[in-house]
Amino acid sequence: MPSEFSVRRRIEFSETDMAGIVHFSNFFRYMETVEHAFYRSLGFSVVHDQHNPPIGFPRVHASCDYSKPLRFEDEIEIRLRVIEKKDKALTHQILFYKLAGERTMEVARGKLVVVCVTKGTDGRMAAVPIPKDIADKIEIMEPEPPLARG
Amino acid sequence: MPSEFSVRRRIEFSETDMAGIVHFSNFFRYMETVEHAFYRSLGFSVVHDQHNPPIGFPRVHASCDYSKPLRFEDEIEIRLRVIEKKDKALTHQILFYKLAGERTMEVARGKLVVVCVTKGTDGRMAAVPIPKDIADKIEIMEPEPPLARG
Amino acid sequence: MPSEFSVRRRIEFSETDMAGIVHFSNFFRYMETVEHAFYRSLGFSVVHDQHNPPIGFPRVHASCDYSKPLRFEDEIEIRLRVIEKKDKALTHQILFYKLAGERTMEVARGKLVVVCVTKGTDGRMAAVPIPKDIADKIEIMEPEPPLARG
Amino acid sequence: MPSEFSVRRRIEFSETDMAGIVHFSNFFRYMETVEHAFYRSLGFSVVHDQHNPPIGFPRVHASCDYSKPLRFEDEIEIRLRVIEKKDKALTHQILFYKLAGERTMEVARGKLVVVCVTKGTDGRMAAVPIPKDIADKIEIMEPEPPLARG
Repeated sequence: MPSEFSVRRRIEFSETDMAGIVHFSNFFRYMETVEHAFYRSLGFSVVHDQHNPPIGFPRVHASCDYSKPLRFEDEIEIRLRVIEKKDKALTHQILFYKLAGERTMEVARGKLVVVCVTKGTDGRMAAVPIPKDIADKIEIMEPEPPLARG
Repeated sequence: MPSEFSVRRRIEFSETDMAGIVHFSNFFRYMETVEHAFYRSLGFSVVHDQHNPPIGFPRVHASCDYSKPLRFEDEIEIRLRVIEKKDKALTHQILFYKLAGERTMEVARGKLVVVCVTKGTDGRMAAVPIPKDIADKIEIMEPEPPLARG
Repeated sequence: MPSEFSVRRRIEFSETDMAGIVHFSNFFRYMETVEHAFYRSLGFSVVHDQHNPPIGFPRVHASCDYSKPLRFEDEIEIRLRVIEKKDKALTHQILFYKLAGERTMEVARGKLVVVCVTKGTDGRMAAVPIPKDIADKIEIMEPEPPLARG
Repeated sequence: MPSEFSVRRRIEFSETDMAGIVHFSNFFRYMETVEHAFYRSLGFSVVHDQHNPPIGFPRVHASCDYSKPLRFEDEIEIRLRVIEKKDKALTHQILFYKLAGERTMEVARGKLVVVCVTKGTDGRMAAVPIPKDIADKIEIMEPEPPLARG
Protein backbone atom coordinates (compact mmCIF):
# COMPACT_ATOMS: atom_id res chain seq x y z
CA MET A 1 0.00 0.00 0.00
CA PRO A 2 2.50 2.61 -1.16
CA SER A 3 -0.09 5.31 -1.71
CA GLU A 4 -3.29 6.76 -0.42
CA PHE A 5 -6.30 4.44 -0.29
CA SER A 6 -9.76 5.77 -1.13
CA VAL A 7 -13.43 4.87 -1.47
CA ARG A 8 -16.38 6.81 -2.87
CA ARG A 9 -19.94 6.99 -1.71
CA ARG A 10 -23.10 9.02 -2.15
CA ILE A 11 -24.74 10.66 0.85
CA GLU A 12 -27.98 8.97 1.87
CA PHE A 13 -31.10 10.68 3.18
CA SER A 14 -30.97 8.84 6.49
CA GLU A 15 -27.50 10.30 7.12
CA THR A 16 -28.79 13.88 7.17
CA ASP A 17 -30.28 15.71 10.15
CA MET A 18 -32.83 18.48 10.52
CA ALA A 19 -30.15 21.07 9.77
CA GLY A 20 -30.21 19.64 6.24
CA ILE A 21 -26.64 18.34 6.42
CA VAL A 22 -24.87 15.09 7.26
CA HIS A 23 -24.93 14.54 11.03
CA PHE A 24 -21.42 15.03 12.37
CA SER A 25 -21.37 11.56 13.96
CA ASN A 26 -21.72 9.92 10.55
CA PHE A 27 -18.25 11.07 9.50
CA PHE A 28 -16.96 8.54 12.03
CA ARG A 29 -18.95 5.76 10.36
CA TYR A 30 -17.48 6.80 7.01
CA MET A 31 -13.97 6.69 8.51
CA GLU A 32 -14.54 3.11 9.55
CA THR A 33 -15.86 2.19 6.11
CA VAL A 34 -12.66 3.33 4.41
CA GLU A 35 -10.54 1.74 7.16
CA HIS A 36 -12.19 -1.66 6.65
CA ALA A 37 -11.95 -1.39 2.86
CA PHE A 38 -8.25 -0.59 3.30
CA TYR A 39 -7.76 -3.75 5.38
CA ARG A 40 -9.60 -5.78 2.73
CA SER A 41 -7.24 -4.32 0.11
CA LEU A 42 -4.41 -5.87 2.17
CA GLY A 43 -6.15 -9.24 2.17
CA PHE A 44 -7.25 -8.87 5.77
CA SER A 45 -10.73 -8.70 7.30
CA VAL A 46 -11.42 -7.55 10.84
CA VAL A 47 -13.93 -10.36 11.00
CA HIS A 48 -12.88 -13.17 8.70
CA ASP A 49 -9.45 -13.25 10.19
CA GLN A 50 -6.95 -16.02 9.42
CA HIS A 51 -4.68 -15.25 12.38
CA ASN A 52 -4.59 -17.50 15.40
CA PRO A 53 -5.64 -16.22 17.85
CA PRO A 54 -7.79 -13.72 15.89
CA ILE A 55 -6.85 -10.07 16.14
CA GLY A 56 -8.92 -6.91 16.08
CA PHE A 57 -8.29 -3.17 15.89
CA PRO A 58 -10.41 -1.32 18.45
CA ARG A 59 -10.03 2.46 18.37
CA VAL A 60 -8.55 4.36 21.30
CA HIS A 61 -8.95 7.79 19.71
CA ALA A 62 -11.17 9.30 17.04
CA SER A 63 -11.39 12.93 15.98
CA CYS A 64 -12.70 15.08 13.15
CA ASP A 65 -12.35 18.69 12.04
CA TYR A 66 -15.23 19.97 9.95
CA SER A 67 -14.80 22.73 7.39
CA LYS A 68 -17.82 22.42 5.06
CA PRO A 69 -21.16 20.63 5.28
CA LEU A 70 -22.20 17.61 3.21
CA ARG A 71 -25.73 17.25 1.86
CA PHE A 72 -28.05 14.57 0.50
CA GLU A 73 -26.87 13.03 -2.79
CA ASP A 74 -23.43 14.64 -2.57
CA GLU A 75 -20.77 12.33 -3.95
CA ILE A 76 -17.74 12.10 -1.75
CA GLU A 77 -14.31 10.54 -1.76
CA ILE A 78 -12.79 9.40 1.50
CA ARG A 79 -9.01 8.97 1.52
CA LEU A 80 -7.00 7.11 4.11
CA ARG A 81 -3.29 7.49 4.87
CA VAL A 82 -1.47 5.53 7.55
CA ILE A 83 0.60 8.29 9.14
CA GLU A 84 2.08 6.34 12.04
CA LYS A 85 2.88 2.66 12.43
CA LYS A 86 3.98 1.46 15.84
CA ASP A 87 4.55 -2.06 17.04
CA LYS A 88 0.98 -2.38 18.37
CA ALA A 89 -0.84 0.64 16.95
CA LEU A 90 -1.71 2.47 13.74
CA THR A 91 -2.71 6.09 13.19
CA HIS A 92 -4.91 6.79 10.17
CA GLN A 93 -5.46 10.24 8.74
CA ILE A 94 -8.74 10.35 6.85
CA LEU A 95 -9.61 13.12 4.39
CA PHE A 96 -13.10 13.85 3.11
CA TYR A 97 -13.60 15.40 -0.31
CA LYS A 98 -16.79 16.46 -2.00
CA LEU A 99 -16.77 15.69 -5.72
CA ALA A 100 -18.34 18.28 -7.98
CA GLY A 101 -17.58 17.71 -11.64
CA GLU A 102 -13.89 18.17 -12.25
CA ARG A 103 -13.38 19.80 -8.89
CA THR A 104 -12.91 18.21 -5.51
CA MET A 105 -13.17 20.19 -2.30
CA GLU A 106 -11.95 19.11 1.10
CA VAL A 107 -14.80 19.19 3.62
CA ALA A 108 -13.40 17.48 6.70
CA ARG A 109 -10.43 15.57 8.00
CA GLY A 110 -10.30 12.98 10.70
CA LYS A 111 -7.97 10.75 12.64
CA LEU A 112 -8.34 7.23 14.01
CA VAL A 113 -5.83 5.62 16.36
CA VAL A 114 -6.32 1.86 16.55
CA VAL A 115 -4.59 -0.76 18.65
CA CYS A 116 -4.00 -4.37 17.67
CA VAL A 117 -5.54 -6.67 20.27
CA THR A 118 -6.29 -10.30 20.81
CA LYS A 119 -8.17 -12.22 23.45
CA GLY A 120 -5.89 -13.78 26.06
CA THR A 121 -6.41 -17.16 27.66
CA ASP A 122 -8.15 -15.35 30.54
CA GLY A 123 -10.72 -13.99 28.07
CA ARG A 124 -9.49 -10.39 28.36
CA MET A 125 -8.37 -8.24 25.46
CA ALA A 126 -4.68 -7.40 25.40
CA ALA A 127 -2.59 -5.33 23.02
CA VAL A 128 -0.27 -7.41 20.85
CA PRO A 129 2.16 -6.62 18.03
CA ILE A 130 0.56 -6.22 14.61
CA PRO A 131 1.18 -9.52 12.75
CA LYS A 132 4.18 -9.22 10.43
CA ASP A 133 2.24 -10.26 7.30
CA ILE A 134 -0.06 -7.25 7.80
CA ALA A 135 2.51 -4.79 9.11
CA ASP A 136 4.85 -5.46 6.19
CA LYS A 137 2.17 -4.40 3.71
CA ILE A 138 1.51 -1.06 5.37
CA GLU A 139 3.61 1.89 4.26
CA ILE A 140 3.35 5.08 6.18
CA MET A 141 2.76 8.40 4.42
CA GLU A 142 3.22 12.01 5.33
CA PRO A 143 0.07 13.55 6.75
CA GLU A 144 -1.67 16.01 4.47
CA PRO A 145 -0.60 19.49 5.64
CA PRO A 146 -3.28 21.66 7.25
CA LEU A 147 -5.48 23.75 5.01
CA ALA A 148 -4.52 27.39 4.83
CA ARG A 149 -7.42 29.37 6.23
CA GLY A 150 -8.37 32.67 4.72
CA MET B 1 -47.87 -8.03 33.20
CA PRO B 2 -51.65 -7.66 33.14
CA SER B 3 -51.64 -4.30 31.46
CA GLU B 4 -49.94 -2.18 28.87
CA PHE B 5 -46.23 -1.51 29.36
CA SER B 6 -44.78 1.88 28.45
CA VAL B 7 -41.60 3.96 28.35
CA ARG B 8 -41.05 7.64 27.66
CA ARG B 9 -38.29 9.39 25.79
CA ARG B 10 -37.40 12.73 24.25
CA ILE B 11 -36.54 12.95 20.57
CA GLU B 12 -32.85 13.58 19.94
CA PHE B 13 -31.37 15.74 17.21
CA SER B 14 -29.50 12.84 15.64
CA GLU B 15 -32.81 11.02 15.15
CA THR B 16 -34.15 13.68 12.78
CA ASP B 17 -33.53 13.93 9.05
CA MET B 18 -33.38 16.80 6.60
CA ALA B 19 -37.18 16.84 6.37
CA GLY B 20 -37.04 18.12 9.96
CA ILE B 21 -38.76 15.04 11.40
CA VAL B 22 -37.77 11.74 12.98
CA HIS B 23 -36.48 9.38 10.29
CA PHE B 24 -39.03 6.60 9.77
CA SER B 25 -36.44 3.89 10.48
CA ASN B 26 -35.96 5.17 14.02
CA PHE B 27 -39.47 4.12 15.03
CA PHE B 28 -38.17 0.56 14.77
CA ARG B 29 -35.34 1.34 17.16
CA TYR B 30 -37.87 2.82 19.58
CA MET B 31 -40.00 -0.35 19.30
CA GLU B 32 -37.04 -2.42 20.35
CA THR B 33 -36.31 -0.12 23.28
CA VAL B 34 -39.78 -0.64 24.74
CA GLU B 35 -39.63 -4.38 23.96
CA HIS B 36 -36.38 -4.80 25.89
CA ALA B 37 -37.63 -2.66 28.78
CA PHE B 38 -40.71 -4.89 28.86
CA TYR B 39 -38.54 -8.01 29.12
CA ARG B 40 -36.55 -6.38 31.92
CA SER B 41 -39.82 -5.69 33.75
CA LEU B 42 -40.39 -9.48 33.65
CA GLY B 43 -36.96 -10.09 35.13
CA PHE B 44 -35.53 -11.21 31.80
CA SER B 45 -32.75 -9.75 29.68
CA VAL B 46 -32.15 -10.69 26.06
CA VAL B 47 -28.48 -10.62 26.93
CA HIS B 48 -27.96 -11.48 30.56
CA ASP B 49 -30.06 -14.58 30.27
CA GLN B 50 -30.30 -17.19 33.02
CA HIS B 51 -31.72 -19.91 30.78
CA ASN B 52 -29.60 -22.83 29.67
CA PRO B 53 -29.08 -22.86 26.75
CA PRO B 54 -29.59 -19.09 26.40
CA ILE B 55 -32.57 -17.91 24.37
CA GLY B 56 -33.11 -14.91 22.15
CA PHE B 57 -36.02 -13.28 20.36
CA PRO B 58 -35.07 -12.38 16.77
CA ARG B 59 -37.80 -10.62 14.81
CA VAL B 60 -39.40 -12.23 11.76
CA HIS B 61 -41.70 -9.29 11.00
CA ALA B 62 -41.69 -5.58 11.73
CA SER B 63 -44.12 -2.96 10.49
CA CYS B 64 -45.21 0.58 11.21
CA ASP B 65 -48.05 2.86 10.14
CA TYR B 66 -47.29 6.56 10.40
CA SER B 67 -49.99 9.15 10.98
CA LYS B 68 -48.15 12.23 12.27
CA PRO B 69 -44.50 13.33 12.32
CA LEU B 70 -42.30 13.60 15.40
CA ARG B 71 -39.81 16.44 15.83
CA PHE B 72 -36.72 17.31 17.87
CA GLU B 73 -37.37 17.60 21.60
CA ASP B 74 -40.87 16.09 21.36
CA GLU B 75 -41.64 13.96 24.39
CA ILE B 76 -43.18 10.64 23.49
CA GLU B 77 -44.67 7.64 25.18
CA ILE B 78 -44.27 4.23 23.60
CA ARG B 79 -46.74 1.57 24.73
CA LEU B 80 -46.39 -2.17 24.20
CA ARG B 81 -49.16 -4.78 24.25
CA VAL B 82 -48.57 -8.45 23.67
CA ILE B 83 -51.47 -9.26 21.36
CA GLU B 84 -50.60 -12.85 20.52
CA LYS B 85 -48.71 -15.50 22.47
CA LYS B 86 -47.92 -18.74 20.70
CA ASP B 87 -45.80 -21.62 21.87
CA LYS B 88 -42.68 -20.23 20.15
CA ALA B 89 -43.63 -16.68 19.13
CA LEU B 90 -44.95 -13.38 20.44
CA THR B 91 -46.66 -10.54 18.61
CA HIS B 92 -46.26 -7.07 20.09
CA GLN B 93 -48.42 -4.10 19.15
CA ILE B 94 -46.57 -0.88 19.80
CA LEU B 95 -48.29 2.49 19.99
CA PHE B 96 -46.52 5.84 19.75
CA TYR B 97 -47.97 8.90 21.48
CA LYS B 98 -46.73 12.46 21.46
CA LEU B 99 -47.14 14.12 24.85
CA ALA B 100 -48.22 17.74 24.82
CA GLY B 101 -49.28 19.01 28.23
CA GLU B 102 -52.42 17.19 29.29
CA ARG B 103 -53.02 15.84 25.84
CA THR B 104 -51.53 12.83 24.18
CA MET B 105 -51.84 12.23 20.47
CA GLU B 106 -51.22 8.96 18.66
CA VAL B 107 -48.60 9.43 15.95
CA ALA B 108 -47.79 5.90 14.81
CA ARG B 109 -48.41 2.26 15.55
CA GLY B 110 -46.19 -0.68 14.89
CA LYS B 111 -45.98 -4.42 15.18
CA LEU B 112 -43.14 -6.79 15.97
CA VAL B 113 -43.36 -10.56 15.61
CA VAL B 114 -40.54 -12.29 17.46
CA VAL B 115 -39.60 -15.96 17.68
CA CYS B 116 -37.95 -17.65 20.63
CA VAL B 117 -34.72 -19.33 19.50
CA THR B 118 -31.71 -21.02 20.95
CA LYS B 119 -28.49 -22.29 19.49
CA GLY B 120 -28.51 -26.02 18.86
CA THR B 121 -25.58 -28.36 19.39
CA ASP B 122 -24.77 -27.92 15.68
CA GLY B 123 -24.36 -24.18 16.23
CA ARG B 124 -27.49 -23.26 14.27
CA MET B 125 -30.40 -21.24 15.60
CA ALA B 126 -33.63 -23.15 16.06
CA ALA B 127 -37.07 -22.07 17.27
CA VAL B 128 -37.95 -23.42 20.70
CA PRO B 129 -40.90 -23.00 23.08
CA ILE B 130 -40.81 -19.84 25.18
CA PRO B 131 -39.59 -20.90 28.65
CA LYS B 132 -42.51 -21.38 31.03
CA ASP B 133 -41.18 -18.92 33.63
CA ILE B 134 -41.31 -16.16 31.01
CA ALA B 135 -44.45 -17.28 29.20
CA ASP B 136 -46.42 -17.47 32.45
CA LYS B 137 -45.74 -13.82 33.19
CA ILE B 138 -47.01 -12.59 29.83
CA GLU B 139 -50.70 -11.77 29.56
CA ILE B 140 -52.13 -11.03 26.17
CA MET B 141 -54.24 -7.94 25.55
CA GLU B 142 -56.68 -6.87 22.93
CA PRO B 143 -55.03 -4.84 20.18
CA GLU B 144 -55.89 -1.16 20.18
CA PRO B 145 -58.63 -0.70 17.56
CA PRO B 146 -57.69 1.22 14.41
CA LEU B 147 -57.99 4.99 14.47
CA ALA B 148 -61.09 6.31 12.81
CA ARG B 149 -60.00 8.37 9.84
CA GLY B 150 -62.22 11.32 9.24
CA MET C 1 -39.08 1.82 -15.82
CA PRO C 2 -40.48 -1.36 -17.34
CA SER C 3 -38.53 -3.69 -15.09
CA GLU C 4 -37.20 -4.18 -11.63
CA PHE C 5 -34.75 -1.57 -10.35
CA SER C 6 -31.82 -2.63 -8.17
CA VAL C 7 -28.76 -1.42 -6.29
CA ARG C 8 -25.94 -3.30 -4.61
CA ARG C 9 -24.08 -2.61 -1.41
CA ARG C 10 -21.73 -4.21 1.06
CA ILE C 11 -22.72 -4.51 4.71
CA GLU C 12 -20.77 -2.15 6.97
CA PHE C 13 -19.57 -2.89 10.47
CA SER C 14 -21.61 -0.07 12.00
CA GLU C 15 -24.77 -1.69 10.62
CA THR C 16 -24.33 -4.82 12.72
CA ASP C 17 -25.43 -5.32 16.32
CA MET C 18 -24.18 -7.44 19.20
CA ALA C 19 -26.01 -10.47 17.79
CA GLY C 20 -23.44 -10.31 14.98
CA ILE C 21 -26.01 -9.51 12.30
CA VAL C 22 -27.45 -6.45 10.59
CA HIS C 23 -29.81 -4.67 12.98
CA PHE C 24 -33.37 -5.12 11.73
CA SER C 25 -33.99 -1.35 11.58
CA ASN C 26 -31.26 -0.94 8.96
CA PHE C 27 -33.28 -2.84 6.37
CA PHE C 28 -35.57 0.21 6.34
CA ARG C 29 -32.62 2.49 5.59
CA TYR C 30 -31.63 0.20 2.74
CA MET C 31 -35.20 0.34 1.39
CA GLU C 32 -34.98 4.10 1.26
CA THR C 33 -31.61 3.97 -0.50
CA VAL C 34 -33.01 1.91 -3.36
CA GLU C 35 -36.18 4.03 -3.46
CA HIS C 36 -34.18 7.25 -3.88
CA ALA C 37 -31.88 5.67 -6.46
CA PHE C 38 -35.02 4.58 -8.34
CA TYR C 39 -36.31 8.17 -8.36
CA ARG C 40 -32.94 9.39 -9.60
CA SER C 41 -33.16 6.85 -12.44
CA LEU C 42 -36.40 8.61 -13.45
CA GLY C 43 -34.65 11.98 -13.43
CA PHE C 44 -36.28 13.01 -10.15
CA SER C 45 -34.73 13.84 -6.78
CA VAL C 46 -36.72 14.05 -3.56
CA VAL C 47 -34.61 17.07 -2.74
CA HIS C 48 -33.49 18.77 -5.93
CA ASP C 49 -37.01 18.89 -7.24
CA GLN C 50 -37.97 20.86 -10.36
CA HIS C 51 -41.72 20.84 -9.60
CA ASN C 52 -43.48 23.95 -8.39
CA PRO C 53 -44.49 23.71 -5.62
CA PRO C 54 -41.94 21.02 -4.67
CA ILE C 55 -43.26 17.56 -3.89
CA GLY C 56 -42.13 14.89 -1.50
CA PHE C 57 -42.97 11.26 -0.78
CA PRO C 58 -43.34 10.67 2.98
CA ARG C 59 -44.06 7.08 3.95
CA VAL C 60 -47.35 6.08 5.59
CA HIS C 61 -46.46 2.41 5.94
CA ALA C 62 -43.26 0.41 6.13
CA SER C 63 -42.87 -3.30 6.80
CA CYS C 64 -40.34 -6.07 6.49
CA ASP C 65 -40.34 -9.86 6.74
CA TYR C 66 -36.99 -11.38 7.67
CA SER C 67 -35.99 -14.88 6.60
CA LYS C 68 -32.19 -14.97 6.93
CA PRO C 69 -29.62 -12.77 8.68
CA LEU C 70 -27.08 -10.52 6.97
CA ARG C 71 -23.54 -10.16 8.28
CA PHE C 72 -20.56 -7.82 7.99
CA GLU C 73 -19.06 -7.66 4.49
CA ASP C 74 -21.96 -9.55 2.91
CA GLU C 75 -22.70 -8.21 -0.55
CA ILE C 76 -26.37 -7.66 -1.17
CA GLU C 77 -28.68 -6.68 -3.97
CA ILE C 78 -31.82 -4.73 -3.18
CA ARG C 79 -34.54 -4.82 -5.80
CA LEU C 80 -37.51 -2.47 -6.02
CA ARG C 81 -40.79 -3.08 -7.83
CA VAL C 82 -43.64 -0.59 -7.90
CA ILE C 83 -46.59 -2.90 -7.28
CA GLU C 84 -49.34 -0.30 -6.99
CA LYS C 85 -49.69 3.16 -8.50
CA LYS C 86 -52.60 5.26 -7.34
CA ASP C 87 -53.35 8.87 -8.11
CA LYS C 88 -51.55 10.10 -4.96
CA ALA C 89 -49.66 7.06 -3.68
CA LEU C 90 -47.15 4.38 -4.64
CA THR C 91 -46.52 0.96 -3.12
CA HIS C 92 -43.00 -0.41 -3.46
CA GLN C 93 -42.11 -4.05 -2.89
CA ILE C 94 -38.46 -4.35 -1.94
CA LEU C 95 -36.55 -7.62 -2.09
CA PHE C 96 -33.23 -8.29 -0.38
CA TYR C 97 -30.80 -10.81 -1.83
CA LYS C 98 -27.48 -11.94 -0.49
CA LEU C 99 -24.94 -12.47 -3.26
CA ALA C 100 -22.64 -15.44 -2.86
CA GLY C 101 -20.69 -16.22 -6.00
CA GLU C 102 -23.09 -17.38 -8.68
CA ARG C 103 -25.90 -17.83 -6.21
CA THR C 104 -28.26 -15.27 -4.81
CA MET C 105 -30.45 -16.01 -1.83
CA GLU C 106 -33.46 -14.01 -0.71
CA VAL C 107 -33.02 -12.85 2.89
CA ALA C 108 -35.88 -10.40 3.44
CA ARG C 109 -38.66 -8.60 1.72
CA GLY C 110 -40.19 -5.27 2.56
CA LYS C 111 -42.90 -2.84 1.55
CA LEU C 112 -43.06 0.93 1.54
CA VAL C 113 -46.26 2.89 0.91
CA VAL C 114 -45.51 6.52 0.09
CA VAL C 115 -47.85 9.44 -0.54
CA CYS C 116 -47.15 12.39 -2.81
CA VAL C 117 -47.43 15.63 -0.84
CA THR C 118 -46.74 19.29 -1.22
CA LYS C 119 -46.85 22.23 1.15
CA GLY C 120 -50.04 24.25 0.83
CA THR C 121 -50.28 28.02 1.08
CA ASP C 122 -51.15 27.55 4.77
CA GLY C 123 -47.80 25.79 5.29
CA ARG C 124 -49.37 22.38 5.90
CA MET C 125 -48.56 19.23 3.98
CA ALA C 126 -51.37 17.94 1.77
CA ALA C 127 -51.61 14.90 -0.48
CA VAL C 128 -51.60 15.78 -4.19
CA PRO C 129 -51.64 13.77 -7.42
CA ILE C 130 -48.25 12.45 -8.52
CA PRO C 131 -47.04 14.81 -11.29
CA LYS C 132 -47.76 13.35 -14.72
CA ASP C 133 -44.12 13.53 -15.87
CA ILE C 134 -43.16 11.22 -13.00
CA ALA C 135 -46.25 9.02 -12.99
CA ASP C 136 -45.95 8.33 -16.73
CA LYS C 137 -42.47 6.89 -16.25
CA ILE C 138 -43.53 4.42 -13.58
CA GLU C 139 -44.71 1.01 -14.71
CA ILE C 140 -46.23 -1.30 -12.17
CA MET C 141 -45.08 -4.88 -11.83
CA GLU C 142 -46.49 -8.00 -10.31
CA PRO C 143 -45.31 -8.53 -6.75
CA GLU C 144 -42.86 -11.37 -6.28
CA PRO C 145 -44.87 -14.34 -5.02
CA PRO C 146 -44.26 -15.45 -1.43
CA LEU C 147 -41.45 -17.87 -0.76
CA ALA C 148 -42.55 -21.43 -0.32
CA ARG C 149 -41.63 -22.46 3.22
CA GLY C 150 -40.60 -26.01 3.47
CA MET D 1 -24.40 26.90 35.32
CA PRO D 2 -21.67 27.06 37.95
CA SER D 3 -21.07 23.33 37.96
CA GLU D 4 -20.89 20.27 35.82
CA PHE D 5 -24.05 19.32 33.93
CA SER D 6 -24.98 15.67 33.51
CA VAL D 7 -27.53 13.27 32.05
CA ARG D 8 -27.98 9.52 32.46
CA ARG D 9 -29.02 6.90 29.98
CA ARG D 10 -29.11 3.16 29.48
CA ILE D 11 -27.33 1.59 26.52
CA GLU D 12 -29.74 0.30 23.87
CA PHE D 13 -29.30 -2.84 21.80
CA SER D 14 -29.26 -0.92 18.51
CA GLU D 15 -26.25 1.07 19.77
CA THR D 16 -24.05 -2.02 19.96
CA ASP D 17 -22.08 -3.59 17.13
CA MET D 18 -20.95 -7.12 16.35
CA ALA D 19 -18.00 -6.72 18.72
CA GLY D 20 -20.63 -6.72 21.47
CA ILE D 21 -19.90 -3.14 22.54
CA VAL D 22 -21.25 0.33 21.83
CA HIS D 23 -20.11 1.45 18.39
CA PHE D 24 -17.52 4.21 18.78
CA SER D 25 -19.53 6.63 16.63
CA ASN D 26 -22.40 6.56 19.12
CA PHE D 27 -20.33 8.34 21.75
CA PHE D 28 -20.64 11.40 19.52
CA ARG D 29 -24.43 11.10 19.53
CA TYR D 30 -24.35 10.88 23.32
CA MET D 31 -22.16 14.02 23.46
CA GLU D 32 -24.77 15.91 21.50
CA THR D 33 -27.55 14.65 23.76
CA VAL D 34 -25.89 16.10 26.86
CA GLU D 35 -24.98 19.29 24.99
CA HIS D 36 -28.60 19.90 23.98
CA ALA D 37 -29.87 19.06 27.47
CA PHE D 38 -27.34 21.58 28.81
CA TYR D 39 -28.71 24.29 26.50
CA ARG D 40 -32.25 23.46 27.60
CA SER D 41 -31.11 23.86 31.22
CA LEU D 42 -30.14 27.44 30.26
CA GLY D 43 -33.58 28.06 28.76
CA PHE D 44 -32.26 27.77 25.20
CA SER D 45 -33.12 25.31 22.45
CA VAL D 46 -31.04 24.89 19.31
CA VAL D 47 -34.32 24.63 17.47
CA HIS D 48 -36.99 26.59 19.29
CA ASP D 49 -34.81 29.65 19.42
CA GLN D 50 -36.12 33.05 20.55
CA HIS D 51 -33.21 35.01 19.06
CA ASN D 52 -33.64 37.09 15.93
CA PRO D 53 -32.10 36.06 13.63
CA PRO D 54 -32.01 32.48 15.01
CA ILE D 55 -28.63 31.12 16.01
CA GLY D 56 -27.17 27.65 15.90
CA PHE D 57 -24.06 25.90 17.18
CA PRO D 58 -22.50 23.71 14.44
CA ARG D 59 -19.44 21.79 15.52
CA VAL D 60 -16.03 22.46 14.00
CA HIS D 61 -14.23 19.78 16.00
CA ALA D 62 -15.22 16.57 17.73
CA SER D 63 -12.97 14.02 19.38
CA CYS D 64 -13.10 11.12 21.79
CA ASP D 65 -10.59 9.01 23.72
CA TYR D 66 -11.82 5.55 24.64
CA SER D 67 -10.56 3.69 27.68
CA LYS D 68 -13.18 1.00 28.38
CA PRO D 69 -16.05 -0.49 26.37
CA LEU D 70 -19.75 0.01 27.07
CA ARG D 71 -22.25 -2.82 26.68
CA PHE D 72 -26.00 -3.36 26.30
CA GLU D 73 -28.02 -2.28 29.34
CA ASP D 74 -25.07 -0.50 30.97
CA GLU D 75 -26.22 2.61 32.78
CA ILE D 76 -24.04 5.60 32.08
CA GLU D 77 -23.66 9.18 33.20
CA ILE D 78 -22.46 11.77 30.73
CA ARG D 79 -21.02 14.96 32.22
CA LEU D 80 -20.44 18.21 30.37
CA ARG D 81 -18.07 21.02 31.35
CA VAL D 82 -17.62 24.19 29.33
CA ILE D 83 -13.86 24.54 29.42
CA GLU D 84 -13.46 27.48 27.07
CA LYS D 85 -15.78 30.36 26.24
CA LYS D 86 -14.76 32.69 23.44
CA ASP D 87 -16.71 35.47 21.84
CA LYS D 88 -18.06 33.18 19.10
CA ALA D 89 -17.17 29.67 20.25
CA LEU D 90 -17.50 27.19 23.11
CA THR D 91 -15.40 24.17 23.98
CA HIS D 92 -17.15 21.36 25.86
CA GLN D 93 -15.33 18.59 27.67
CA ILE D 94 -17.57 15.55 27.96
CA LEU D 95 -16.87 12.70 30.37
CA PHE D 96 -18.47 9.27 30.17
CA TYR D 97 -18.94 7.20 33.31
CA LYS D 98 -20.32 3.71 33.69
CA LEU D 99 -22.47 3.36 36.79
CA ALA D 100 -22.15 0.11 38.69
CA GLY D 101 -23.78 0.22 42.08
CA GLU D 102 -21.91 2.66 44.28
CA ARG D 103 -19.01 2.86 41.90
CA THR D 104 -18.62 4.90 38.79
CA MET D 105 -15.85 4.26 36.32
CA GLU D 106 -14.69 6.61 33.59
CA VAL D 107 -14.91 4.91 30.19
CA ALA D 108 -14.27 7.71 27.70
CA ARG D 109 -13.81 11.43 27.39
CA GLY D 110 -14.64 13.67 24.49
CA LYS D 111 -14.47 17.23 23.28
CA LEU D 112 -16.79 19.31 21.13
CA VAL D 113 -15.87 22.73 19.77
CA VAL D 114 -18.95 24.60 18.56
CA VAL D 115 -19.27 27.97 16.86
CA CYS D 116 -22.21 30.33 17.15
CA VAL D 117 -23.62 31.07 13.70
CA THR D 118 -26.57 32.73 12.11
CA LYS D 119 -27.82 32.99 8.55
CA GLY D 120 -26.84 36.24 6.89
CA THR D 121 -29.04 38.22 4.49
CA ASP D 122 -27.24 36.43 1.65
CA GLY D 123 -28.42 33.08 3.03
CA ARG D 124 -24.94 31.98 4.10
CA MET D 125 -23.96 30.94 7.60
CA ALA D 126 -21.63 33.32 9.40
CA ALA D 127 -20.05 33.17 12.85
CA VAL D 128 -21.50 35.71 15.26
CA PRO D 129 -20.94 36.51 18.94
CA ILE D 130 -22.82 34.26 21.36
CA PRO D 131 -25.87 36.27 22.52
CA LYS D 132 -25.22 37.91 25.89
CA ASP D 133 -28.26 36.31 27.58
CA ILE D 134 -26.80 32.87 26.84
CA ALA D 135 -23.12 33.71 27.33
CA ASP D 136 -23.80 35.27 30.74
CA LYS D 137 -25.28 32.02 32.02
CA ILE D 138 -22.29 29.91 31.04
CA GLU D 139 -19.49 29.55 33.55
CA ILE D 140 -16.31 27.88 32.48
CA MET D 141 -14.75 25.08 34.49
CA GLU D 142 -11.35 23.53 34.70
CA PRO D 143 -11.04 20.49 32.47
CA GLU D 144 -10.87 17.18 34.27
CA PRO D 145 -7.20 16.22 34.47
CA PRO D 146 -6.09 13.24 32.38
CA LEU D 147 -6.40 9.78 33.87
CA ALA D 148 -3.19 8.38 35.22
CA ARG D 149 -2.33 5.30 33.18
CA GLY D 150 -0.67 2.40 34.75
